[in-house]
Amino acid sequence: MEKNSVLVIGGGAVGAIAALNLEVGGFATVTLVLRSNYEAVKRDGYTVNSCDHGMLKGWKPTHLRNTIPDLAQETLPPYDYIVLTTKNIPDIPPSSASLIAPAIPDSNTHTTVVLIQNGLNIEKPFIDAYPNTPILSGVSMIGSTETALGVISQEDHDRLLIGAFENPNISTTAGEGKAKEFVKMYSAGGKTECVYSENVKHDRWRKLVYNAALNPICAIVDLDTGRIRLADGGRELVGQAMKEVVEAARKAGVELKESVVGEMIEADPLEVYLKPSMMVDVEKGNFIEFENLIGEPLREGKKLGVAMPTLEVLYLMAKVVQWRVKEKRGMVEIPAKREMGS
Amino acid sequence: MEKNSVLVIGGGAVGAIAALNLEVGGFATVTLVLRSNYEAVKRDGYTVNSCDHGMLKGWKPTHLRNTIPDLAQETLPPYDYIVLTTKNIPDIPPSSASLIAPAIPDSNTHTTVVLIQNGLNIEKPFIDAYPNTPILSGVSMIGSTETALGVISQEDHDRLLIGAFENPNISTTAGEGKAKEFVKMYSAGGKTECVYSENVKHDRWRKLVYNAALNPICAIVDLDTGRIRLADGGRELVGQAMKEVVEAARKAGVELKESVVGEMIEADPLEVYLKPSMMVDVEKGNFIEFENLIGEPLREGKKLGVAMPTLEVLYLMAKVVQWRVKEKRGMVEIPAKREMGS
Repeated sequence: MEKNSVLVIGGGAVGAIAALNLEVGGFATVTLVLRSNYEAVKRDGYTVNSCDHGMLKGWKPTHLRNTIPDLAQETLPPYDYIVLTTKNIPDIPPSSASLIAPAIPDSNTHTTVVLIQNGLNIEKPFIDAYPNTPILSGVSMIGSTETALGVISQEDHDRLLIGAFENPNISTTAGEGKAKEFVKMYSAGGKTECVYSENVKHDRWRKLVYNAALNPICAIVDLDTGRIRLADGGRELVGQAMKEVVEAARKAGVELKESVVGEMIEADPLEVYLKPSMMVDVEKGNFIEFENLIGEPLREGKKLGVAMPTLEVLYLMAKVVQWRVKEKRGMVEIPAKREMGS
Repeated sequence: MEKNSVLVIGGGAVGAIAALNLEVGGFATVTLVLRSNYEAVKRDGYTVNSCDHGMLKGWKPTHLRNTIPDLAQETLPPYDYIVLTTKNIPDIPPSSASLIAPAIPDSNTHTTVVLIQNGLNIEKPFIDAYPNTPILSGVSMIGSTETALGVISQEDHDRLLIGAFENPNISTTAGEGKAKEFVKMYSAGGKTECVYSENVKHDRWRKLVYNAALNPICAIVDLDTGRIRLADGGRELVGQAMKEVVEAARKAGVELKESVVGEMIEADPLEVYLKPSMMVDVEKGNFIEFENLIGEPLREGKKLGVAMPTLEVLYLMAKVVQWRVKEKRGMVEIPAKREMGS
């Protein structure tokens, strides 16, 4: 395998470990695009305390940037891969698809885009914008967090499922070829478990059982995945939402084992009291990824005739929470307060 | 009308104004039982800034206490009325009914109990414990808050609907008589709007449209009644829950006007950004009154065959929130935290 040029966008907990795995394998030259932690990483490199890689201090990928490369303006050759590890928040512009536009050649067929992001139908805007671009799905089960700018703590092994999204303009064989090449490149360092997956739809729906149910519930009621199991009513609430997702998946052609609900409720060790991503985002005042995590499975399920009343409530509450963040950030104007009776 | 002896339990925002109205009318001698603000009120009296009563400084009712009177031990005559204005939280002992036991004579028929409390079926434990005691329903629409210990700010007029709860052991006429006497006594000062209501069930279900839907939603998503209307998805969420309550009421024999949903969403002036009671309780770390406000209408509706999926989610979430308060107060033990990987 030749060395590939890989543009990784997003250098938080997921992106930094992805960049590290890619470079450690020796088949990739990584350009990593950072935002909030750019200055810190440029100065000191990453501090990575990882169950897969051990303790690294001052690690940097080949290239660091704080802007998306503009191929035309900077007269750069196209990348072989563009890996997106940022949050996917289509309701807050710019969209992920428009974000990478300057780095995608016109009428691209060369560059493969890899979406290591959660949720359903995330590939659709990319297929619309770049019809002949191979798009790969990355479903990550990494237990890593950025504890301070440029400081990554990875407490659970990286497991990454890679497959090709269905794309009417690209043959199944071509997509499969790209996916397998990426897996080889990502796994070459031997530090991680990156596996080719034939059934991207299955991987995504399976993860949604956690991400459309437990994740927003923890964020909304402000309890971690351990406490929600201990709380009166918690398991019932989560189980109810999960069952709706399993039923929607079934109608969408993805048969999940009956045991998946129990497995997903117990996925995080109870005593770790882990806060799932949406809960962390709410605490930090960040926007939440609710459209692809809740909205899309809900819309898909309803279209297929599945009753999803619990997801419906979670979706509306998540929407309200998103508005709350917008208000705190001064992005919506509301009428001035007046005292009662005045 | 003779002067009645009235024991008012709870001297917060609702209880203090009730005690004031009763004494101002001249037909009641009030004994007020306080807890958290007892020392403050005993020392300085109440400071009341009220749209009905004007500005009062140092006001005290005839008697102040910090315990429930024990008729037998203290050899006290029975009260004519016992008015409960405390929160009703049956899932956290002691129950309201057991709380007043020392102040109720054995085999009581003399003392009338008035429950100025929200929710459905709150009279049931009282009828069980004191079968021949007349029990009155008080539905209060007061806009008052205790801004500091003993400092009451009443920004909206007191409107109180009084009627007799259905009780198999007491004739309708007797109940009606007691209710009308109480209305006369409460209204005598002319400062307030206290009205006799024939249809207690109607009053309670009507208020539940607000209290089973808007109240918990605001508490759960942490937005006041103004902001929830402005937030994307807010009106839809609240409307959905309210419609379920209206439908349950209908099946329970209480026909509410179709316009009630809109009226209740708009009940508080938007620009006041009013926090409803459950939201205030969550902010203060208090227990929430969710069993009679959400649990009972939900159980009643389901028994009558009404689909109430939104209320179901609100109920489970409220239960989880209640557990969160218990945990914060050290009332539940949870397994010790351990680090991931250890």
